[in-house]
Amino acid sequence: MKNIIVGQSGGPTSVMNASLCGVIKEAQESKFEKIFGMINGIEGFLQDNVVELQNFSDEELEILKTTPSAYLGSCRYKLPNDYNDEIYKLIFKKLSEKNIGYVLYIGGNDSMDTINKLSRYADMIMSKVRFIGIPKTIDNDLLCTDHTPGFGSAAKFVATATRDIIMDAECYKSKSVTIVEIMGRHTGWLTASSIIARGEHDANPALIYLPEIEFDAFEFIQSVKHELEKKDNVVVCVSEGIKDKNDKFICEYAVKTNKDIFGHTNLTGSSKYLEELIKEKLGVKVRSIELNVLQRSSALTLALADVCDAENVGREGVKVAIDGYNGYMISIERDENDNISYETVNVSKVCNKEKKFPLEWIKDKNDIAEDFIKYITPIIKGSVDIVRDDFGMPKYIRRG
Amino acid sequence: MKNIIVGQSGGPTSVMNASLCGVIKEAQESKFEKIFGMINGIEGFLQDNVVELQNFSDEELEILKTTPSAYLGSCRYKLPNDYNDEIYKLIFKKLSEKNIGYVLYIGGNDSMDTINKLSRYADMIMSKVRFIGIPKTIDNDLLCTDHTPGFGSAAKFVATATRDIIMDAECYKSKSVTIVEIMGRHTGWLTASSIIARGEHDANPALIYLPEIEFDAFEFIQSVKHELEKKDNVVVCVSEGIKDKNDKFICEYAVKTNKDIFGHTNLTGSSKYLEELIKEKLGVKVRSIELNVLQRSSALTLALADVCDAENVGREGVKVAIDGYNGYMISIERDENDNISYETVNVSKVCNKEKKFPLEWIKDKNDIAEDFIKYITPIIKGSVDIVRDDFGMPKYIRRG
Repeated sequence: MKNIIVGQSGGPTSVMNASLCGVIKEAQESKFEKIFGMINGIEGFLQDNVVELQNFSDEELEILKTTPSAYLGSCRYKLPNDYNDEIYKLIFKKLSEKNIGYVLYIGGNDSMDTINKLSRYADMIMSKVRFIGIPKTIDNDLLCTDHTPGFGSAAKFVATATRDIIMDAECYKSKSVTIVEIMGRHTGWLTASSIIARGEHDANPALIYLPEIEFDAFEFIQSVKHELEKKDNVVVCVSEGIKDKNDKFICEYAVKTNKDIFGHTNLTGSSKYLEELIKEKLGVKVRSIELNVLQRSSALTLALADVCDAENVGREGVKVAIDGYNGYMISIERDENDNISYETVNVSKVCNKEKKFPLEWIKDKNDIAEDFIKYITPIIKGSVDIVRDDFGMPKYIRRG
Repeated sequence: MKNIIVGQSGGPTSVMNASLCGVIKEAQESKFEKIFGMINGIEGFLQDNVVELQNFSDEELEILKTTPSAYLGSCRYKLPNDYNDEIYKLIFKKLSEKNIGYVLYIGGNDSMDTINKLSRYADMIMSKVRFIGIPKTIDNDLLCTDHTPGFGSAAKFVATATRDIIMDAECYKSKSVTIVEIMGRHTGWLTASSIIARGEHDANPALIYLPEIEFDAFEFIQSVKHELEKKDNVVVCVSEGIKDKNDKFICEYAVKTNKDIFGHTNLTGSSKYLEELIKEKLGVKVRSIELNVLQRSSALTLALADVCDAENVGREGVKVAIDGYNGYMISIERDENDNISYETVNVSKVCNKEKKFPLEWIKDKNDIAEDFIKYITPIIKGSVDIVRDDFGMPKYIRRG
């Protein structure tokens, strides 16, 4: 039997190691002799930077499952569109040298592009190496899947942190505005999750702004002013990627931006800009808070359902690879009773595309409908008993 | 028997409600007929904004104990230095109207100023009302106590979040610098706690800068450069209150600052300034992260020892008030075997003063000595089983 290799790619999540754990477990049970791991994804693989994972113990796997970020290290590496590029030959040469027949890649829509290209190249050269994508993104923006592993735990962090910020903001009597900036470059799934922080007793977060709706600064100021008439402390949640009618990111008004190799604009600073705007227009006490990378790398807000999904898509990936599938991603299907099953979807339908937050789940341009809460509840529910260290802090496993 | 009243004041912590819980429990057991709570501290009390707390159930108290921020609401209110001011007469008139004989105030060094003044005024007018301070601050900067309730859990948040940020930062191969900005206006206790995030496998956080040491931008750049030669991803922790040799806050180079009513400068932005500085001088990928208010309002990083301390100082406060103490704060004493006891200290020794981080616990200007780890370990250890809601998120209790 051929060997198997797994890599991690793109932005970290809290459960992408749960997927790795699923891959290793299933591969161990399937009696693979060698289970390789790419260090820093395909980029490291090209430099022969690989480790062997077959000897992971059950105890180590248990800690790995709740260790955030990418145990193997990640990369942002785009394969060339030209299949005549030498890099393809090189990759298949290296796969052959290690007698690898199965490649699993845990990542988001950019990483699925890698799987798409490699699986097509394999077909072109009539190679029998199988390429399977394991979905992973906090953004929940992959097509053809009910939700993505990583989203549930990140959403739970957003909801928990927003509630904690509300608790903090509401402790003073004096009028204040707090702006919480949440990840989500072009889609509002994570920002919408802040609605879960809205309890019975209060109406914060009072306003929620997603990138799917054109942002109007004048309307924003009016809405904040209106909320300040109703309550002392107003908490507003905004996506880092909100844009105005000129298709310009709000953060671009505040800071110089730069682009990563995929051409994405690095977006933070929307909340800082809005902080200054409110200070100027309303003269009220205001602060801005970026939730930042903790959204995607916290073990304390893991959602049980999310960890299970992540492990299961990893396991399923190994199964379908053995079954001979090539160029597919594992998807999560949900029936009307919220029962989950794992299916396969042609990766070409997923890669380089984004699933927007449904417009019908956005109320009055700055609020979230009940239907979204119904959608997200099974995804974020359940807490996870994590292994802890001597300080009572989450225990993580790291490469030596 | 006279009635008792309790208030909360100053910046929130994750355990100031555990102290409130301790006060309520002890007062219930001491058979007070009325246990009053000031809404928004002495400021609300002056507006007759009080609630009754004697009917809190055990179940509600259990949730209250792990609910962050101030259940009663907080304030930042400084009593006048002039004891002839009408406000003192007014306060004692209102206390008399409600037949209150005991006043407990949960707060930091500014709040202890309130207790100091009211207890002195009580002595001056030969009132029998007893005033007791319950220590509370994430900053750990109160004199005459081994540590302060609130510090342990905030320190644990800092250590946990810093470790999560390290996990995230180290997942890419490309060179990067991450600057984490931690609370602590004039003292470095919280920032020093980030040392707990330094594991066996790595040396991040590589550099730690406290306000107790004069910050030198040139040396800083040299140190970061040196660390980048040793590792791909360098994580640096800085206090929001670092100052240069001209006694100017680093953040003042970055942003306009404003002062609160105690004359404190509102300090954030040190990390943002250092981010720009590194970008300019070293041309490496760099990002800054403010840990922000979650440091002081998270239930998920509660330290068991801290919650116990907080509840116990609340209970002890009720006991010593009944015993007739006036103008005292409850302090925490530790013996050579790390056994804890609760004592009283004259509040005039505590108020308006700050306990600095010991210079002998700072190594090479930007690192923390082992002695501090020995000091902090018993303070942050132990995790707390919190009550959770249907989503598996921390369940909080709020005023109706």
